[in-house]
Amino acid sequence: MKAYALLGGPTDLWPEDIKKRFLKAKYAHDLVVGVDRGSLYLEELGIVPDLAVGDFDSLKPKDLSRIESNVPDIRYSNPIKDWTDSELMLQTVFDDYHVTQLTILGATGGRIDHFLINLLMLLNQAIRQFAERVTILDQQNKILFFNPGQHSLQQDLTYPYIGFAGLTGVKNFSIKHARYELDNFSANYPRVFSSNEFLPHQPEFEISFDEGMIAAIYSKDINRFHNL
Amino acid sequence: MKAYALLGGPTDLWPEDIKKRFLKAKYAHDLVVGVDRGSLYLEELGIVPDLAVGDFDSLKPKDLSRIESNVPDIRYSNPIKDWTDSELMLQTVFDDYHVTQLTILGATGGRIDHFLINLLMLLNQAIRQFAERVTILDQQNKILFFNPGQHSLQQDLTYPYIGFAGLTGVKNFSIKHARYELDNFSANYPRVFSSNEFLPHQPEFEISFDEGMIAAIYSKDINRFHNL
Repeated sequence: MKAYALLGGPTDLWPEDIKKRFLKAKYAHDLVVGVDRGSLYLEELGIVPDLAVGDFDSLKPKDLSRIESNVPDIRYSNPIKDWTDSELMLQTVFDDYHVTQLTILGATGGRIDHFLINLLMLLNQAIRQFAERVTILDQQNKILFFNPGQHSLQQDLTYPYIGFAGLTGVKNFSIKHARYELDNFSANYPRVFSSNEFLPHQPEFEISFDEGMIAAIYSKDINRFHNL
Repeated sequence: MKAYALLGGPTDLWPEDIKKRFLKAKYAHDLVVGVDRGSLYLEELGIVPDLAVGDFDSLKPKDLSRIESNVPDIRYSNPIKDWTDSELMLQTVFDDYHVTQLTILGATGGRIDHFLINLLMLLNQAIRQFAERVTILDQQNKILFFNPGQHSLQQDLTYPYIGFAGLTGVKNFSIKHARYELDNFSANYPRVFSSNEFLPHQPEFEISFDEGMIAAIYSKDINRFHNL
């Protein structure tokens, strides 16, 4: 089973077709998950989550009642806690629902401490094993996560650029058959390699590394600029 | 001398009063810096940068000519390079201009690989010593950077929340006299502690740690949500 989760990040960074994506997930009997305010956003899109996770302390009582009256599985997190709502959601969908793939929306933008929690949650040792099943998606970025090993990256024509961020130090990070190659890079702190590209007629390239976690960030430019 | 730099991030995340900030900097004879497309944005705001840094490869020839004809100091970066434009800018303002404080705008949002470059650039060993002189500012976040030691955090009433992100592993990270205290936390990978607060009548609290780099993220909620 696949899963789609909506978090509470700013709605103006959602992919344009977000409602269609969640409706499609519902029709396919995929698991639809709301995290905290994301549960309310799903309700407002006309979609009842199968699972809601959060402390819900920013919701009005009537909005929380609405969620409590129609969501079949609700996991309440403790506001003073070691695990964040996002981590609890990951643990629940992988350990309890055994989902094979999870796409997360509403995870970017807004308060930067919130975004970093979502970007770095897979470093939690207890859920790190699930990293390669997770995708974070917004209006102009798609993020995949990789544990050590050798991995093929597939071109996605929506996104002309692909950057790599070591979320930790990394050991022997190599990129092969891409526009910019890298040979056994090691560092004991996070480092970003931005704006790589797929070569013409080569819709796939390879990365490998021995230690750490790497995020592959597919991205495109968007004209979101105000007039100056 | 203080410095203010504008990077090429999405303009809709700029602080509302950005033009006033740069005009004030000009009047005070602070250093005004444009990085890549940020140089053009400054020109379009009616402000001529004192220094421009970048490869400028995304600019139209006429826009680059405009910058080349009136900016007194231009540093061209190499697109295939070890150092990013942001790192080259930091090195230039601190090593060559000896500025005491640097505020960076236009560093957030948009392509996530670009944002992470800006968030993590101070981990570069050659410029890490300048971390505590740098502030990243956008519409709803203010980020300060800290090297190991003991530091006082001052309340800023603009921002009700303060989160901490280990940008690396950290050793013995403690938070004292805040809403949520922390006692000698250590981890060998980045970890985020979000949504802390200043205590009533206590406009300052203390953090300390022995190894790593920590970003303090002051933030506020903003209603940027589209109607659903």
